[in-house]
Amino acid sequence: MTTSPILFDLDGTLIDNVYAHVLAWRDAMLSAGNDIPAWFVHRRIGMSDTLIIGEMLRWSGTKSDDALVERIKNAHSAAYKRYSTTVKPLPGAQALLAHLDENMFPWAIATSGDLESCKNSLALLGRDPKAITIVTRDDAQASKPDPDLFLRAAERLGLPITQAIVVGDSQWDMIAARRCGALPVGLLSGGNAAEELQGCGAVRIYDGLASLLQNLNEIAPIKI
Amino acid sequence: MTTSPILFDLDGTLIDNVYAHVLAWRDAMLSAGNDIPAWFVHRRIGMSDTLIIGEMLRWSGTKSDDALVERIKNAHSAAYKRYSTTVKPLPGAQALLAHLDENMFPWAIATSGDLESCKNSLALLGRDPKAITIVTRDDAQASKPDPDLFLRAAERLGLPITQAIVVGDSQWDMIAARRCGALPVGLLSGGNAAEELQGCGAVRIYDGLASLLQNLNEIAPIKI
Repeated sequence: MTTSPILFDLDGTLIDNVYAHVLAWRDAMLSAGNDIPAWFVHRRIGMSDTLIIGEMLRWSGTKSDDALVERIKNAHSAAYKRYSTTVKPLPGAQALLAHLDENMFPWAIATSGDLESCKNSLALLGRDPKAITIVTRDDAQASKPDPDLFLRAAERLGLPITQAIVVGDSQWDMIAARRCGALPVGLLSGGNAAEELQGCGAVRIYDGLASLLQNLNEIAPIKI
Repeated sequence: MTTSPILFDLDGTLIDNVYAHVLAWRDAMLSAGNDIPAWFVHRRIGMSDTLIIGEMLRWSGTKSDDALVERIKNAHSAAYKRYSTTVKPLPGAQALLAHLDENMFPWAIATSGDLESCKNSLALLGRDPKAITIVTRDDAQASKPDPDLFLRAAERLGLPITQAIVVGDSQWDMIAARRCGALPVGLLSGGNAAEELQGCGAVRIYDGLASLLQNLNEIAPIKI
């Protein structure tokens, strides 16, 4: 029997913060004079900050430059603080991770965010970043939909990426998983439709982590 | 040539406020001790307040009563005020309505919200509720996905519902349109996927009102 590590996305997968990020990006773009509809932002969550900003500026026909990108990033961080006061882990997140730990099942987090911005999310999960395997965009050469984050996460676990299962809520997670030969599993918890995730290769869809735990044998049999 | 009135939904169709409503409902439910994931709320936007609250309470296994529903409604109104400070019309909304007016094309708004909560949205559109045809849940016996709101809107315009085109962003708009024989047209601007809207009968999908205006002849030829 092979050991298939689970590589989790963070935002929208373990933490219920996609909608707070959407409004924070919207406000950040507004503060730079760009009115971007919320749905357009939503569908790009899961990419790195720089990629999202590039997409939004291109959509609004605004020329990008480093200073502008930095200003929008800072405005987003400030706005996210305002919108995220009631952000919580997604239902079942702690229970699933605890179950994997109890069964010595290898898992890691691979996120497009930087370590600094992940710290609050990990605190909500009751996890110390030093005590788990986590790869952030500080550790990777490129962010999702590039597979680099997942490749490094599997590497740190010492297991081949082609045995890994990627669990994520966005199309960028699914595409990144496909690009490195991992098995993409989609969650509805980021507000993307099952059809969108399936269209990017998701082999299973769960509405959240509680359902995934209940059906864990479908993707990662712990004991046979 | 027949005259086909366009019946517009309001939230998520003309106004970019779905994501603000999602977080406001989430906070309102949290204040009542229920942690409902944001995606679950999102997929129910477009129903009436009472239906959404009923859905969320059922999901969390909480017994509903009138006092609790009223308390959650009030908490939502207060939270929405906080989240909606930067809400704007969706791109192209004013231009499309102005184009229809210039061409004497009949249109109305049919929304699950009450008139009081619509006033700010109409003000953002620069429209006086007394100067347009608008049907709110105060005027209807039941809210979407029941077709009553659309039936009354067509009635007020003095045109048969079976000639009407319903433009909305949610599955509840599409289902309500189907239930009264109107033609459902879906928009991505509420954050629902094209496949979800098509699955409920949408015959055309546009990313927003600017695209709809550009392709208006596909659904409602103004002159032949």
